[in-house]
Amino acid sequence: MELIDGKKVSDEIKQEIAVKVEQIVAAGGRRPHLAAVLVGHDGGSETYVAHKVKACGQCGFESTLIRFEDDVTEEELLATVAKLNADPNIDGYIVQLPLPRHISEQRIIEAIDYRKDVDGFHPINVGRMSIGLPCFLSATPAGIIELLARYDIDTKGKRCVVLGRSNIVGKPVAMLMMQKHNPGDATVTVCHSATKDLKEIVREADIIIAALGSPGFVTADMVKPGAVIIDVGTTRVPDATRKSGFRLCGDVDFDNVAPMCSYITPVPGGVGPMTIVSLMRNTLAAADHSVYPL
Amino acid sequence: MELIDGKKVSDEIKQEIAVKVEQIVAAGGRRPHLAAVLVGHDGGSETYVAHKVKACGQCGFESTLIRFEDDVTEEELLATVAKLNADPNIDGYIVQLPLPRHISEQRIIEAIDYRKDVDGFHPINVGRMSIGLPCFLSATPAGIIELLARYDIDTKGKRCVVLGRSNIVGKPVAMLMMQKHNPGDATVTVCHSATKDLKEIVREADIIIAALGSPGFVTADMVKPGAVIIDVGTTRVPDATRKSGFRLCGDVDFDNVAPMCSYITPVPGGVGPMTIVSLMRNTLAAADHSVYPL
Repeated sequence: MELIDGKKVSDEIKQEIAVKVEQIVAAGGRRPHLAAVLVGHDGGSETYVAHKVKACGQCGFESTLIRFEDDVTEEELLATVAKLNADPNIDGYIVQLPLPRHISEQRIIEAIDYRKDVDGFHPINVGRMSIGLPCFLSATPAGIIELLARYDIDTKGKRCVVLGRSNIVGKPVAMLMMQKHNPGDATVTVCHSATKDLKEIVREADIIIAALGSPGFVTADMVKPGAVIIDVGTTRVPDATRKSGFRLCGDVDFDNVAPMCSYITPVPGGVGPMTIVSLMRNTLAAADHSVYPL
Repeated sequence: MELIDGKKVSDEIKQEIAVKVEQIVAAGGRRPHLAAVLVGHDGGSETYVAHKVKACGQCGFESTLIRFEDDVTEEELLATVAKLNADPNIDGYIVQLPLPRHISEQRIIEAIDYRKDVDGFHPINVGRMSIGLPCFLSATPAGIIELLARYDIDTKGKRCVVLGRSNIVGKPVAMLMMQKHNPGDATVTVCHSATKDLKEIVREADIIIAALGSPGFVTADMVKPGAVIIDVGTTRVPDATRKSGFRLCGDVDFDNVAPMCSYITPVPGGVGPMTIVSLMRNTLAAADHSVYPL
């Protein structure tokens, strides 16, 4: 069994990006600039955004954090989005989800200029990904594909089972895994809450991508020996022994499953850091206009 | 075994649309107006466009056919697209594919105003479909879903195998079949040229959607007794006994497979007429702005 070290790979990629940024700056260019909009004080969101801001520093990017309280109106948020769309000094930006209930996440996402949508959530980017056109790939699926590539894991013709059909992980990673590129070209099955005989289906998988948000869901009896396991779950489970009061739990029963696998991602330190680094790659691509030429 | 009669269902839907159109006209409204752009003289394209124009008449729509020879330039075609986008009397339009090689189909598709893209090929419509937002669904996948609905075929939790991963059928129908609606909510597997053990995978399917363009590909030994079969294939096979010189062949070995199925679509008379009727539904929705409000 080999552990897929997302932390190490993401550090390598951040260094690669930092080198490119210094080349840009040395050539008289401007540093890529990512803005993040954070509403409220949700613990998870605070942590994610802090990680993103920190990663910007490591990549040599400028970053701007724009904060709102929970009672911000949709109009105020839309006005901020419009300002960020128009600001030539902002290459890309994200609005950290989830948003308070009185705000339509979809309306905010659709208001973002797709050429600055480095989260890859805008319908244009989702559609272009599905068709196989250049686009900002949504960060978690792109991070998974990059991990498979860096570990040179053969995916062509493999049975890949995706657990979960969310718009931000399950559906896009399924589309990427079935496309005729490498990594990809797999025979993909998407399982979800309505799936029957789930254990039997998962047991046929050469590659399991678990994105349910259900701690320890994938147990050893569901895994074919030698399978590759990508664990996207990051549920906060209360843990009095930790200073934070919680620990992050993946969707996979790691201790019992890991010995059976050929490759497995840990939680934390697997997909999580790759998600952030995908955002950095998108921001660099937004800044150098390599996805959407001027 | 019950034959899924796409011809009959499509006639019913066209009548339903015609009733609505007469209500619109009686209320002082304008007839929906579909334009079709046809380049060259490909036999298949000529036939499809002729069917679409005929269906417009049956639905009470206005239609306009714009023809170009094979040597039309991309610029000329883009100018036509711009004109159609701006024309307030055109509710929706299609550019019949395939286009000659010197023209980028993707550039043409992306130039179409997505609010008039009744083929549902524009990245915005593809992305919105994937996310589950209101959109113009691409015609063939929408026709398949409508057939399943009209025959009240239970899809929830069923194993659905899609053969083929094209942008216009395989990928979108897979997305629709996995979404949490009815029909849908199925456990979907997409098979393609790189798939191994294809027969075994197809044999597990409760619902087979064959969209490979490979005549007779699905044979009786690949089908679980009682399966539902949707045959999207329409390959023209030379046939000297026909006046046209060819016959349409589906992807399914119908004679041997049909006796084993619970439901099956014939070719012709199955999915084909539903594709055209989906285009009519999209055109009505473009005219009454029910997908994209003004």
